[in-house]
Amino acid sequence: MDMVPPPGARRALPPELRDALAQAFGERFSTAEAVRQQHGSDESAYVPCPPDAVVYPLDTADVARVVRLCAAHRFPLIPYGVGSSLEGHLLAVHGGICIDLSRMDRVLAIQPEDQTATAQAGLTREGLNRAIADTGLMFTVDPGADATLGGMVATGASGTNTVRYGTMRDNVLSLTVVTADGEVIRTARRARKSSAGYNLTQLFCGSEGTLGIVTEVTVKLHPRPESIAAAVVNFADVRSAVECVIQAIQLGVPLARAEMLDALTIRAINAHSHTSLPEAPTLFLEFGGSNAQVREQGELLQSVAQELGGGAFQWATRPEERTRLWTPRHRAYFACLQLRPGSRCLTTDACVPISRLADCIDETVRDVQASGLVAPVFGHVGDGNFHCLLLLDPRDADENARAEAVSQRLVRRAIAFDGTCTGEHGVGLHKRGYLLEEHGEAAVGLMRRIKQALDPHGILNPGKVLP
Amino acid sequence: MDMVPPPGARRALPPELRDALAQAFGERFSTAEAVRQQHGSDESAYVPCPPDAVVYPLDTADVARVVRLCAAHRFPLIPYGVGSSLEGHLLAVHGGICIDLSRMDRVLAIQPEDQTATAQAGLTREGLNRAIADTGLMFTVDPGADATLGGMVATGASGTNTVRYGTMRDNVLSLTVVTADGEVIRTARRARKSSAGYNLTQLFCGSEGTLGIVTEVTVKLHPRPESIAAAVVNFADVRSAVECVIQAIQLGVPLARAEMLDALTIRAINAHSHTSLPEAPTLFLEFGGSNAQVREQGELLQSVAQELGGGAFQWATRPEERTRLWTPRHRAYFACLQLRPGSRCLTTDACVPISRLADCIDETVRDVQASGLVAPVFGHVGDGNFHCLLLLDPRDADENARAEAVSQRLVRRAIAFDGTCTGEHGVGLHKRGYLLEEHGEAAVGLMRRIKQALDPHGILNPGKVLP
Repeated sequence: MDMVPPPGARRALPPELRDALAQAFGERFSTAEAVRQQHGSDESAYVPCPPDAVVYPLDTADVARVVRLCAAHRFPLIPYGVGSSLEGHLLAVHGGICIDLSRMDRVLAIQPEDQTATAQAGLTREGLNRAIADTGLMFTVDPGADATLGGMVATGASGTNTVRYGTMRDNVLSLTVVTADGEVIRTARRARKSSAGYNLTQLFCGSEGTLGIVTEVTVKLHPRPESIAAAVVNFADVRSAVECVIQAIQLGVPLARAEMLDALTIRAINAHSHTSLPEAPTLFLEFGGSNAQVREQGELLQSVAQELGGGAFQWATRPEERTRLWTPRHRAYFACLQLRPGSRCLTTDACVPISRLADCIDETVRDVQASGLVAPVFGHVGDGNFHCLLLLDPRDADENARAEAVSQRLVRRAIAFDGTCTGEHGVGLHKRGYLLEEHGEAAVGLMRRIKQALDPHGILNPGKVLP
Repeated sequence: MDMVPPPGARRALPPELRDALAQAFGERFSTAEAVRQQHGSDESAYVPCPPDAVVYPLDTADVARVVRLCAAHRFPLIPYGVGSSLEGHLLAVHGGICIDLSRMDRVLAIQPEDQTATAQAGLTREGLNRAIADTGLMFTVDPGADATLGGMVATGASGTNTVRYGTMRDNVLSLTVVTADGEVIRTARRARKSSAGYNLTQLFCGSEGTLGIVTEVTVKLHPRPESIAAAVVNFADVRSAVECVIQAIQLGVPLARAEMLDALTIRAINAHSHTSLPEAPTLFLEFGGSNAQVREQGELLQSVAQELGGGAFQWATRPEERTRLWTPRHRAYFACLQLRPGSRCLTTDACVPISRLADCIDETVRDVQASGLVAPVFGHVGDGNFHCLLLLDPRDADENARAEAVSQRLVRRAIAFDGTCTGEHGVGLHKRGYLLEEHGEAAVGLMRRIKQALDPHGILNPGKVLP
């Protein structure tokens, strides 16, 4: 699709800054073409836009050193984790120094009694879960990628079990942040709640590297349930599948996961994984708790599904069975890409109140069909969040334009339903144009004032978030 | 105790402003001495500090009109709900116009399918629960007072069931706010999650009226459990009671409430309510869920308590029985005041990681004893938050000084345990001095920059939060 990022003013890397960084970081500083190229793109469809150099800090003090050097030259900075952004967050549209945090992957503290852990921002979510494997606890936020904690804070990420355990915002207790002038702050202490001053933790969470650079993250952990059961069930239409989840939530069933895949996604999975799932709207569910609770939740959900015309439940309780049952869901993204070999994809991220979700999906599917595009749909039903994968021939400008138009109409539909243009992927470059429509001039004006107050010279990930 | 608020510069109410407000609001504007006095104090021990006038808006447009008039004269504004602050939030230390939001108590929308409701900021939490009584849903945040939703947003309030359902921060989806220049913004839409721009909702939540005036609040609701059981159990010492709750949480028991009252509090309750509870550290517990879940949770907790030397559980399941069992807990505050008739009380609000809670309470109780003061202790154990009610003869300056010293040492102890000076009451006037100790110069510096960016002329509740 080769989306071209908006042109940004660039200034050459000042030689003094280059020399100072080279001296301070030695081999952990690079201006090599291949390194720069690698750090100039993400999982979005934008053409790469490389930074001027890449630096690899090992700790907060290293990051503060880079920031102070860049601040002195008013030169842009872009924090980087594993590059799994979907919205162009990492592109150096104004040039700048890329701070690659991937070597900052140490676990700093685990407090099982408090159900908290602190790690450097470059640790990935799976890395954290490996580190706490013997505590009986788990870190729950699970976006598609094995993203870094810092990246997940930056976008306010979420995932399949957000319906039960919340988003990254709900699971962050405290952050260590390097400010635009290179000072180090901790946004909160480790108490589970506090009313002591403005909520800096939540201000940095979702700020996409534009207000400060997150270097350490303290998160909440949750006890692993005694028993987990997974189930798959299909429905005649999307509306019934969505309604099933709504009713379960209203009955107070603590669903651990509730993912809806439409018929086209299931067809893609069958072709990709050689499965033979019925090609109909399907719920992938997970329940957790004591054995008795899991049994009770499962029975309740089966009776709800039956009244809505749902098929028979396929169950799995042992870990390897559960993995097998859920594997198709985890492979959905790559399976969908194979619906059109050679295609790229524009991924939408609308999120609406769940009472409007079925309408929003129905209208979107009709719009996709009218546009002559191919676009499987799947989503986190319990959160009202779904993704529409608009599959595109990267060389077809007309198709590209039609896909952007579908995406734009979807955003407007979501906003009309009192929803948001992005439930979990963030704004980055791609959604900036919608902030005004979603929040209005006055609210975006406040965001601009906050940006100006915290980053007066605009050196932190410039060109992102704010229109 | 007659604490005197710090002196603030005051300017006389400009006659043009007075006339403009009188003309715009007629009988809903008052400069009467009695009205001003009533609005010049809260539940804290400060001597009153009345505003220059009080205005009673009926909707957001009314509030915006007041703010624009005050902004034009750069005259202070103080939002007011039911006056239940414990930290001096409402005192007009720089004079100003009090905006009494209590007439803004309409429910604007209830969406049972989405488990959300929107109301004007002057509605109280009990008022909201009455309005949604027939939906099967409940609004869960329950501080001691029947506070307004706006007041609860302002302080980031919490209560007895925060251990299960979260604080006000966790239950606010979106706010309508009048900014310092009289513009109206909505901080978010009604989707359950969003990554669209900076988190204005959480910035205003806990800002104590210093960044904007909250006029409408959209909150999350929760399904009422099918079954609820309450239990009371006592222990030989505070540590065992705390440990019981920690172990229950680690086992994943979804405790709905877990309140610890120390022996002195129980003695106060026995004297006040003519009960005969054993005068020992006691847990008041509540479980919710299906019948089977409640039974299972109860059994699990009984076995945990038994291993820690806990006594027999007293159970109650029917509503009237549960009310009877819990009434002593709800009356604890007034019962404690009666330990010393005629006394006032300085209420502390430390919150620490739960692994440090028993140490923090133990050390505090020893400190209280060494200081020769009387101070019952009770708290929200599952959150690591407890209140120490320092009972004082209001005429005894020495006792006052000793109580402030105990309170200060407790704050420093909590901070040393990686906790906070205030878990739920907010900063107001009384805790401002501790913000630097808790957050450090650089973080408080960021808070100051945010205040300056959003309220450049300092007209919103001046003198509060920031040191």
